[in-house]
Order: sequence, then structure tokens, then C-alpha cells
Amino acid sequence: MADKIEPRVLKGFRDFLPAGERERRDFINTAESVFKLFGFVPIDTPALEYTDILLGKGGGETEKQIYRFTDNGGRDVALHFDLTVPFARYWALHSNELYLPFKRYHIAKVWRGENTQRGRYREFYQCDFDSVGSDSAASDFEILSIVVSSLEALGLSDFSVHVSHRGIFNRFLSANGVADKSVDVLRLVDKLSKIGEDEVRRELSEIVGADLGEKILDYIRTEGDYDATLAKLIKYSGGENDDTRRMAELRTLMKATGTESRFIFDPSITRGLDYYTGVVFETILGEAPSIGSVCSGGRYDNLAALYTKQEVSGVGGSIGMDRLLAALETLEKKRKSASLPEVLIINMGTEVLGHSFALAARLRQMGVSAEVFPDAKKLPVQFTYAEKKEIPFALFCGGDEMQKGVVNLKELQTRQNHDGISLEAAAGLVLSRREA
Amino acid sequence: MADKIEPRVLKGFRDFLPAGERERRDFINTAESVFKLFGFVPIDTPALEYTDILLGKGGGETEKQIYRFTDNGGRDVALHFDLTVPFARYWALHSNELYLPFKRYHIAKVWRGENTQRGRYREFYQCDFDSVGSDSAASDFEILSIVVSSLEALGLSDFSVHVSHRGIFNRFLSANGVADKSVDVLRLVDKLSKIGEDEVRRELSEIVGADLGEKILDYIRTEGDYDATLAKLIKYSGGENDDTRRMAELRTLMKATGTESRFIFDPSITRGLDYYTGVVFETILGEAPSIGSVCSGGRYDNLAALYTKQEVSGVGGSIGMDRLLAALETLEKKRKSASLPEVLIINMGTEVLGHSFALAARLRQMGVSAEVFPDAKKLPVQFTYAEKKEIPFALFCGGDEMQKGVVNLKELQTRQNHDGISLEAAAGLVLSRREA
Repeated sequence: MADKIEPRVLKGFRDFLPAGERERRDFINTAESVFKLFGFVPIDTPALEYTDILLGKGGGETEKQIYRFTDNGGRDVALHFDLTVPFARYWALHSNELYLPFKRYHIAKVWRGENTQRGRYREFYQCDFDSVGSDSAASDFEILSIVVSSLEALGLSDFSVHVSHRGIFNRFLSANGVADKSVDVLRLVDKLSKIGEDEVRRELSEIVGADLGEKILDYIRTEGDYDATLAKLIKYSGGENDDTRRMAELRTLMKATGTESRFIFDPSITRGLDYYTGVVFETILGEAPSIGSVCSGGRYDNLAALYTKQEVSGVGGSIGMDRLLAALETLEKKRKSASLPEVLIINMGTEVLGHSFALAARLRQMGVSAEVFPDAKKLPVQFTYAEKKEIPFALFCGGDEMQKGVVNLKELQTRQNHDGISLEAAAGLVLSRREA
Repeated sequence: MADKIEPRVLKGFRDFLPAGERERRDFINTAESVFKLFGFVPIDTPALEYTDILLGKGGGETEKQIYRFTDNGGRDVALHFDLTVPFARYWALHSNELYLPFKRYHIAKVWRGENTQRGRYREFYQCDFDSVGSDSAASDFEILSIVVSSLEALGLSDFSVHVSHRGIFNRFLSANGVADKSVDVLRLVDKLSKIGEDEVRRELSEIVGADLGEKILDYIRTEGDYDATLAKLIKYSGGENDDTRRMAELRTLMKATGTESRFIFDPSITRGLDYYTGVVFETILGEAPSIGSVCSGGRYDNLAALYTKQEVSGVGGSIGMDRLLAALETLEKKRKSASLPEVLIINMGTEVLGHSFALAARLRQMGVSAEVFPDAKKLPVQFTYAEKKEIPFALFCGGDEMQKGVVNLKELQTRQNHDGISLEAAAGLVLSRREA
């Protein structure tokens, strides 16, 4: 390798081999088809933005992680680290070209210079869906419904969406005279599943004292069912209010759509971010709870406050694509995509090569993916290629078959031969196997 | 806007509103479905790479245009400016996990700090497809076939793929004793359509003298048809050789597949890049020749020479997505996507909201996209929303209809009402309109 450049990728970045990239693209297509069924529309924003747009009024953790530099025109720019900030900027810039409620999805790569030791990547996809412009139970429920439909469409059946409401939690803290500790308490409770109840108890007692700490641990416990938990929270937060009524309305909509078994009222869900103000949710896989939430989100006030005076609130969610793909792999629920291609047309030499390409074109018109092996190599070489690429069928058409207008089809796994059949019959066999 | 950050995007970068982004996504999905029918598989590489990987042995123009910086770990990194260099690096790194021929497609954003005055963007998609590992007419033809099938799938019918062979051109220059002027001559000829024949003549005479210049102008003229042009080039380049035989083989394959009318043998096609060594092509729209080539490519030697000793040649093409979308717009050939959603369920108040959501879920199961308006606002407000979002149908279901198990469907453009029908009948009406 004397004068060669060593081929390598940056730490925390990944190449995707064909099998892995197909999974990602299938995943995106599935999620996208659900978003569309709900009337959500796609948008896109640049990967690079002015740094002040992305960092807003203070960086903190974000500032340390961001890919930031000065471009050739002397501008301070950075790669976006999420799709929420660009959405806020987008809304501020384009609200007069849009309408309310505005429901968008956005699937794009984001970049963060995270510590890779935690198994995190520095480049990954985010898959966000938000509805802005209506502060209603209907809007909250729409987002929760997309969560359920997306995961079902991705082949999952054993999962629960844990919902709660930060407004109720804050009313409870206010009623106990510690409204000013809200940020610390909610962030701490958010870590419950990571650090355990004992550690939360210890830290709570430092923040609000042991007695109130115990009461908070009581508050965040899920009761028998949604209604019982709601009743407890009404009591703890000082009686019915708009926020508890919102949770009751959601319950009505869950029941009306027969989806109530998907939802757990779980007051320990707070989402760490100060950003959220209303309903919040996380989604846990029954068979893999330890991987954490695979789809999270909630309601927020005043999306674009940094960029415009025009106030707009919204609710949204984000599917953790990497985490969910890993879970599907572990749970062996990965859906097998059709092989690419489904048919390898064996190269039988120059005399029939043109005919082979004509057959390939006809197969494609019938919706069957097909390729002609490019060189007239020995059969074992062509078969080895088919095997490596996991192509299920080989099609032979030499001079005799061409004369007779037939083909020979071989199922490579079973070695079953279908000789002297029409191309249409061959396509039929391939298609019937695909559906099997 | 006193303390607000001004919402803005970087020069040369673009936000995409929903209509535009849907066009891009539909475009990508269409191209991808064609690639798959040909047995091509997707890959992905990081947006950021080590700068030495991307710049190779010398930057030139590229170095000035690249987005390059030092990351937080002190690494010299850059955003990829095309998908060819990353593919070469990918091949060098993963060849032992892959197989030959390896046929991949890669659709991703690339970044170039280009001069925006020429109407160029600094962020745009590339849509590349390559087959490496076989130097054969079959492999060349497969790429040419994908060009034709992709453009047809995108709704274009009036286009021609102009093909030529750089090897023949170089043999012709050798036969005339100016092999050493190849780079200059081929680059100059590449500019023919931009600068005109007179200017090419003038510059040619500076490079090779007036007489040979005239002969070159002769050489690059297309004759009556493919065969006549090929015959001329055989004569000019000193008799039949592997390169002219390749062009003859391609002609045989074009005829065998009935696609010969799509191709023009055009010796003035050289592609400016030194990179290409064999067949080269450009694709011109009959109705919009002035926009230039919408899909170009060719054959190259030794893809990954910078990174590995392992030699592999290939052939590939790239669809100019921005250019082609602009052309489809100008030619009014843009395919209308189904509206999102197709049905707006009018919000008739809290009592029927749950039922409305249940109806929406059932519509989606039938493949119809639907959303419930989130607030029980006055009808004109809900209709205005439908109009802005170009939703074709409104569905009404109040208490009476709910009791009777029916719905009222209104076609918003014609104001035609279908009252008291089943939800299935409503879905049928929506679906039949979609196909119309």
C-alpha cells in the first residue's frame, strides 16, 4: 500500500452494506407510508445552517457536540444536530406560505460529535413527525395514533405507549410549594429507569426533602389502570383542571378507536427536555424493554419563539430508527425484503446475449427484477455469484430454447428445475414465491 | 424582531416546501424502483470523510469548492462533493465482503461551495448507479438500459441517449500523432454545444494545427445513423479494434431489445473528465435540448486505484435530479401525486370526535389517507384548510349519521354530495377518483 491512501471511515460514522441499507430504506418507506395515510406531508431543510440559528441562545451540551466551522465565505455554519430546531426556523420563515394546522414529517440525517464509547453514532437518521397549530386532544391523539400505526406497520405487535402530562406534574409540584424545582425534579424522574428508585429517592430528598420526595415517588407510580392513575393525579394536583381533562379526553379517543390497550398512563414519564409542556410519551417494546424508548415525543409551546413573534404550539414524535432496527434484528422480526434481483439470467454466450437482455426487459415489465450475468463465464462462477447475492432463481435460455420460445427456470435453493416453460410461466413462479 | 434571530438559509441552500419535497421523494422512489428491477442494490456512506480520502492526490477545482474543516478531535474532514469518490473508498474497504460484478445505487445529498451566480446549488442530490467488475458490452448495455428505463418511468418519452467511446477517439488521435494532446482535445470537444463549432475550430487549430483540427471536427460529426458513424470511426481510428467492436456489440444488443431508436452514436460526446476510458454517454431531452444532459456517465478503469492495489473497472451513470425535475416542470410533465390527505373528516364536536377517529382509522386500513380536523371550528375555517392543502374530499359524520352507520361525502371541487352512504362506498369513490 506504499503510495495508497488508507481507505477508512471516521470514528462514529458508518458505511452501510447493501443488506443494511435496504433495511433502512424499507424502514423509511414504511414509516413514510404511515405518515402519508395520516395526511402528513414531507419537508426538507439544508444540512448546513448558520450556527446562531442552530444554537439559539445558548449552547450547553449541544455546543460541544455540534459540527461547526467557518465556510469559504467566512460564515459561521454548522451541521444540524436534530430536525426540531430546523423545523422551528422553517416555520418562522415560511408560515405565510403554509397553513394551520401544519403537519409535517421529516426524515434526514443529523450529526453530533457524541462520545462514541456509549455506542452512539455521530451520523444517524431522525424520523420526526409534528403537528403544529392546534392545542387539542385531537391533535395529541393523532400523534399517538401515528406511533401505534407506525410500529404495527414495522411488524411489531408487543409494545406499549407510556403517556403522561407534564402540566399535571407541575400543578402537583406547585400545590406542594416547589414549582421552582420543576426542572430538577422532572429531569431526575426522567432517569428513573436508568438509575433506579433508590437513587431517585436519595436525590429527591436533597432537592425537596425526604417527605415530599416520598410523595413524588407516590405520584409517579402507575396505578391499576389509566382511569385509576388519572383519578390519583387529579387528587394530587389539586382537582380537575384543563390538563387532567386533556388526559380524560385522550382516554375517550383511545376507547372509541379500540386502541386503549396500547396505552399506559405512566406519570413517571417526563421526558428530560424543558421544551415539553403538555402530553409526553415514550414507547417500550414488551420483548425488549431494556433498550428504552423507541419512539418518544410530546407537546410543546411556541415552537419558533427564537425566530418569530408568531406563536404556534405543537405536538410531535420521533422514531428512533437505529434503536428500532437493532431491536427488530434482536427480536428476529426483521422483515425479509425480496432478493435483488429475483432472477439471474445465465450468460450463455454472445449468440443469445441480445435475446437474454430482451427476456430481462420483459421480466421487468412483469414486475420481476432480473439481471443478465455480464460475462459468458463457466456455470459455477455464475452460480457462485447468485449464491453470494442470494438470488433465488436462475434462468437459462440457449439457442434451442430461443428457437422454441421457452426458457428453463431453476430454483437455486431447492435445485428444482422448470424446463421448457414460457417466460410468463417463469415470471408467475417467481412472483408466487415472493408472496409465499 | 428585537431579540429574535432572523430566520434564514445559507446562500445556495434550499428549504423544500411540501409540494416540492414530495416531487423529490416521488422521483427518488421511481428511480429506485427501476434500479431494483435491474438487480442493483443500495449502499450508503457517511456525509463526512477524511479530507485526504476525498481530495486524493490533488485538489484543483474540487479543493476550492469543498466544505472542509477540522473537527473537535482535530481531524481534517470534509463533506463529500460527489458519490463516486466515496464509492471508490467503499469498494477498497469492503471488497472482501462483496462480490463481482457489484452493482450499486446510491442516492444522497452532496455539497459543493459553487458559485451560485450560475444558478447552481451548494447542496443537491446525486443519484448514481454503477456496475463494477466486468468490462463487457453486457455491462455497458445494462447501464444504458437503466438510463432509458429510468427516464421512461419518470414520464419522459422524447429523449435520446448519445453514446460514444473515448478509446476510439484516443486511437484516432494516436493514429494522427497527437496522443499527447488527448486531454486538451477531449475537454475542448466536450464544450462543443456550449461554445459552438467556430470557437472549437479556433482552439483546435491552436492545439493541433488547422488541418488536423478540421479532421477532428470531421471525426466528431454524427453520420446518418449508428452504423454509418461506426464505419467512419473505424476508418478514422485505423481499422477495427476492441473499442469499435464494443460499439458494434452494443448496437446488436440495442436491436435485440428493440431500443435502438433511443440511441445516437455521437462522437462529439467525450465527457470532460479524464476519469472515463471507454463508452461515454449523455442524455438529451427532445423538447428541451438546451438544458443539456439529464443523465450522463461512462466506463472507467481501476475505480479504487487511490486506495487499493486491487484493480476493478466499472461503468456507471448519474441522473441529474434537479435538472430533470426542472425540465419536467417546464414541460408540464410533472406527475400529480395523490393529495395528502385525500379525505378531511370534518370536526363536528366532542360527542362524535371518537367516532371520527375510528372512521379515519378504517379509511386508512382501506388505503385511503385521512385526517380529522383537530378543532370543532366553523365550517368555513375547516373548508379553507382543505382548500389550502388541496384535499379533494370532506367527510361529515354527525350524531344522526353515526346512529345510522353512514357518512356524507362531499367532493370539494365539484361540490357534489354523496349523502348517507357507507364508509366503504365513500372509500370506493375516493379510490376511483385517484385512479382517474
